[in-house]
Amino acid sequence: MTGYFITFEGPEGAGKTTILGLLEKELRGKGFDVLSTREPGGIAISEQIRSVILDKKNTMMDGRTEALLYAAARRQHLVEKVIPALKQGKVVLCDRFIDSSLAYQGHARGLGIEEVLSINEFAIAGVMPTLTLLFKISPEKGMERIYKNEDREVNRLDLEAIDFHHKVYEGYMLLADRFKKRIQVVDAERPLNEVFSEVTELIESMLAK
Amino acid sequence: MTGYFITFEGPEGAGKTTILGLLEKELRGKGFDVLSTREPGGIAISEQIRSVILDKKNTMMDGRTEALLYAAARRQHLVEKVIPALKQGKVVLCDRFIDSSLAYQGHARGLGIEEVLSINEFAIAGVMPTLTLLFKISPEKGMERIYKNEDREVNRLDLEAIDFHHKVYEGYMLLADRFKKRIQVVDAERPLNEVFSEVTELIESMLAK
Repeated sequence: MTGYFITFEGPEGAGKTTILGLLEKELRGKGFDVLSTREPGGIAISEQIRSVILDKKNTMMDGRTEALLYAAARRQHLVEKVIPALKQGKVVLCDRFIDSSLAYQGHARGLGIEEVLSINEFAIAGVMPTLTLLFKISPEKGMERIYKNEDREVNRLDLEAIDFHHKVYEGYMLLADRFKKRIQVVDAERPLNEVFSEVTELIESMLAK
Repeated sequence: MTGYFITFEGPEGAGKTTILGLLEKELRGKGFDVLSTREPGGIAISEQIRSVILDKKNTMMDGRTEALLYAAARRQHLVEKVIPALKQGKVVLCDRFIDSSLAYQGHARGLGIEEVLSINEFAIAGVMPTLTLLFKISPEKGMERIYKNEDREVNRLDLEAIDFHHKVYEGYMLLADRFKKRIQVVDAERPLNEVFSEVTELIESMLAK
């Protein structure tokens, strides 16, 4: 596979989705062939799995069931969308991937990073991101941004207690330490244009190699 | 947990479902509190997951996605149905469980017994069967029985090439060897009444301990 697989990670309200969109335009403008995606990404099987996870009737869903379903949706999205793009040499920008499961289910929900990693290693079968951008923002600042932005729909995770968001943050920091080579931490508390400049520089220097 | 968790395994046409039904009646008659089940077993979340797996439109489904979905459905059925029954001291008879995934997905479909075991260990989190009855029948004899039985609907797996059924058989034999203490092999090529007698004796001697 000749492409680049770049994932965008971070707590809610870190601005990663906005930056991803801006970067996509920037790279396209410079002639790169870009695929921008996020799970389930229009892949029918992954969409079906995601509906099971998000179905409000499924209040009995166990944390391990949920983690296995996320891994299954991930696998299918990877096989049908990411891997073909990487084979075509594209730059794949993916909004959330394996580290979200590790931070949210593994660390914050308490299933264990090692255990959630084991099912995700099965799911990705070696297709790890070339680079992961981790948008670092404190839970308080992240929540503040979400509630200020009226266009953004507040979802179930946003409504979790702030304590949960602290655990997510902590989980991401553990991952940044563990996967030093792959994960690049970006200070996302700065103004958007500064964050965007840093990210663009980072990615372009990687693609120039 | 004070109950007994007994799983029934074997290739298609081995008669395990019939024997399970007979054993259920027998044990009830002797005053045991029995739960007879099979995944997804009426558990709403597991049923939804199973519909995704069996949806004929999902021809693109990757083998790893399928294995993760089976593990997810297993987890939820275990949490909502099997574990509560075991806590109540019931004898749980379950038609197919972890070994089916290991033999079918792990060995026959070539994902690897070790790899499929890893996601299933995550799913069951230590709740392994007390005893597993493995109904041993050659693929040829198994298929013969299926096609003779007009009441039984021929399913997708039945229609797979005989070569696949040989691999399933081989997978089960590898498991019998690996999990010697848990798996009890039953010769299922004999007449039904003989198989039933052996199974009844086996179970009753276990429950008498």
